[in-house]
Amino acid sequence: MISHRYQERLERCSHLMKSAGLDALLLTKPANMFYLTGDGRLCAYAMITQDGKVALGVPTTDVEDVRSLAHFDHIAGFEDEVGMIHSIAHHFQHFGIRQGAVGLEYTFLTQSMMGMLTHPHAKPAGVTVKDCTHLLSELRMVKEAEEIERIRAAAKVAEAGMAAAVEAVKPGVTESQVAAFAEYAMRQAGAEGFWRTYVSSGPRTNIAHGLPTHRKLEPGDLVMIDVHPIVNGYSADMCRTVCMGKPTAEQQAAYDLYLKAQQATIAKVKAGVRMVELEETLHGMLKEAGHGEHIFGPPIHGVGIEFEEAPLPPSHAFFHGEKEPPPLPANVVLSVGNCGLYTGPWGVRVEDTVVVGPEKPVVLTGYPRQLEKQV
Amino acid sequence: MISHRYQERLERCSHLMKSAGLDALLLTKPANMFYLTGDGRLCAYAMITQDGKVALGVPTTDVEDVRSLAHFDHIAGFEDEVGMIHSIAHHFQHFGIRQGAVGLEYTFLTQSMMGMLTHPHAKPAGVTVKDCTHLLSELRMVKEAEEIERIRAAAKVAEAGMAAAVEAVKPGVTESQVAAFAEYAMRQAGAEGFWRTYVSSGPRTNIAHGLPTHRKLEPGDLVMIDVHPIVNGYSADMCRTVCMGKPTAEQQAAYDLYLKAQQATIAKVKAGVRMVELEETLHGMLKEAGHGEHIFGPPIHGVGIEFEEAPLPPSHAFFHGEKEPPPLPANVVLSVGNCGLYTGPWGVRVEDTVVVGPEKPVVLTGYPRQLEKQV
Repeated sequence: MISHRYQERLERCSHLMKSAGLDALLLTKPANMFYLTGDGRLCAYAMITQDGKVALGVPTTDVEDVRSLAHFDHIAGFEDEVGMIHSIAHHFQHFGIRQGAVGLEYTFLTQSMMGMLTHPHAKPAGVTVKDCTHLLSELRMVKEAEEIERIRAAAKVAEAGMAAAVEAVKPGVTESQVAAFAEYAMRQAGAEGFWRTYVSSGPRTNIAHGLPTHRKLEPGDLVMIDVHPIVNGYSADMCRTVCMGKPTAEQQAAYDLYLKAQQATIAKVKAGVRMVELEETLHGMLKEAGHGEHIFGPPIHGVGIEFEEAPLPPSHAFFHGEKEPPPLPANVVLSVGNCGLYTGPWGVRVEDTVVVGPEKPVVLTGYPRQLEKQV
Repeated sequence: MISHRYQERLERCSHLMKSAGLDALLLTKPANMFYLTGDGRLCAYAMITQDGKVALGVPTTDVEDVRSLAHFDHIAGFEDEVGMIHSIAHHFQHFGIRQGAVGLEYTFLTQSMMGMLTHPHAKPAGVTVKDCTHLLSELRMVKEAEEIERIRAAAKVAEAGMAAAVEAVKPGVTESQVAAFAEYAMRQAGAEGFWRTYVSSGPRTNIAHGLPTHRKLEPGDLVMIDVHPIVNGYSADMCRTVCMGKPTAEQQAAYDLYLKAQQATIAKVKAGVRMVELEETLHGMLKEAGHGEHIFGPPIHGVGIEFEEAPLPPSHAFFHGEKEPPPLPANVVLSVGNCGLYTGPWGVRVEDTVVVGPEKPVVLTGYPRQLEKQV
């Protein structure tokens, strides 16, 4: 039953590999391994052949655990880095791959990891390497019904985390303590983990990636909270900004503008829309109001196994080793509202996880969008 | 005052750069940037010249925040990836660097990030690139008194996290919920963040990197808890294994052996000791007892800004782009006990953060080492 899911994915992978002229993939990125085999972990690799065979190499300690979780044809344990290199060589030999091209994840591999995977004791001399980043992105872009259910579950957990965080927002509480409440609530609500929680406050709301600090919240502060729980391997992405007390007229106006732009963008999230159109909608409304200099980062990005993944808007795609995405088919899942509006002394951001529906958007994260926190 | 600290570090950096034939460093790894400038964040870079000048490039949104935190000579904001590339070009020009060698972090940079930093619009054609991983590691290896105080503070927070986690160990509680208690307690006790928390139970204690899952704890389970809080930018690393109820004789024997080997290794953590001697002590006692096949990963590693950093034992160092460390001077900080003892059906691990003292080890993580959890 479960194997059927991976066989179908491997078949699609096989087609893409043929088009790309790839004879095998050698994956080490957990998200990609998880998608194609059901298990993704660090210190492990998956070799995928063009005819859909899977060989896994994992620490010897982990063999039984992986056996119980993953779809594969062959598995080998290794004791250390040298063992991993030999294990890769063994699997190349096992599949009879002596030449051709193997796909590696250029956007994940460091220079030193690249050196290990292409070590002369691992890779046959006749085998060349190519980037397979965008192949995997294309493969993972449209979500299956089951995947959307998992993202929906993560969205519910994100709401629980946000509710706990907003509840914790009080004078004297640190940003890190607000994050503590969010993360605790998310784990209790069913998350097996989460990507980094961002909590910034006061002047720190102007920062693009506001990791929590020991800063204590003060009355009148804006507080920006961005959560990314992981539930059954899938993520959601939600950000809210709240004001502890009454916002200034300028803050309220910026928030209202941002929310209006975000909601106008969300309204366009349906099959056939282009990422660039979504980007232009959100950016356009902010620019028109004179905030062209007050945005940072891709306003829209994909959500799935990773809280931030392909598709990305074309300009960002290039620098992340991705291709410009096609007009979006139904069942791509997006985060809308990532760019924020950073005025200098403070910023606001509202971000939601949305499914590209055949005819209209399906918003998965429903926590109230309201600046002033009722106290 | 604070600038003095960074000036001293930059002077030492300068000496190492001269020996290594590096005219500049172009850093993007937050831990390295934090060490040399006082601020390390993603989507940013630090260019360091051989005479100790620092130019920072950060998102425009973050300029004021970085200005208040970092030591630097020049700072520039950028709007996006293209802006970052131009900003790097600008700083090369500003420093008059048209040829020579620039150091890049090969163990941190992905292939695609490497492509950005060495883009023809960023890097002058006459400038070549070299790995500077081990230069930064050498620089950061011996800790200043202030750094040790921060690691000590992180160790206290790790103890608070461990106490909360062990307290939470009860039948029916999930691994993720145990992690929730640890992380919540660490943030409340003063952590601004933490590296991934590992909680594994029952058969999953045999896994090298046991990220928490929805598995519910059962009476008689072993539970392995590994925490890594971050306090004022510095980490500690502590692991404990507890049994929920009475362990079997075999489990108790394995635990006692492991603890004995770990403590014997810790006893040798003093100035002049070689990493390989520490590794051989820990591995040797396990091998002698017939557990040579039951270990994974470096038994000892450095602790500092990162919970796992250089120095590494020689065999692991090579694959992580590091050099074989010299005999350890005083005030290196180590984690001892990382390799674990994985028997197949279950595993045990005890790990502590220890300062290399001039004459004897200073153990920073003091949470009780006891297998059977009193209920």
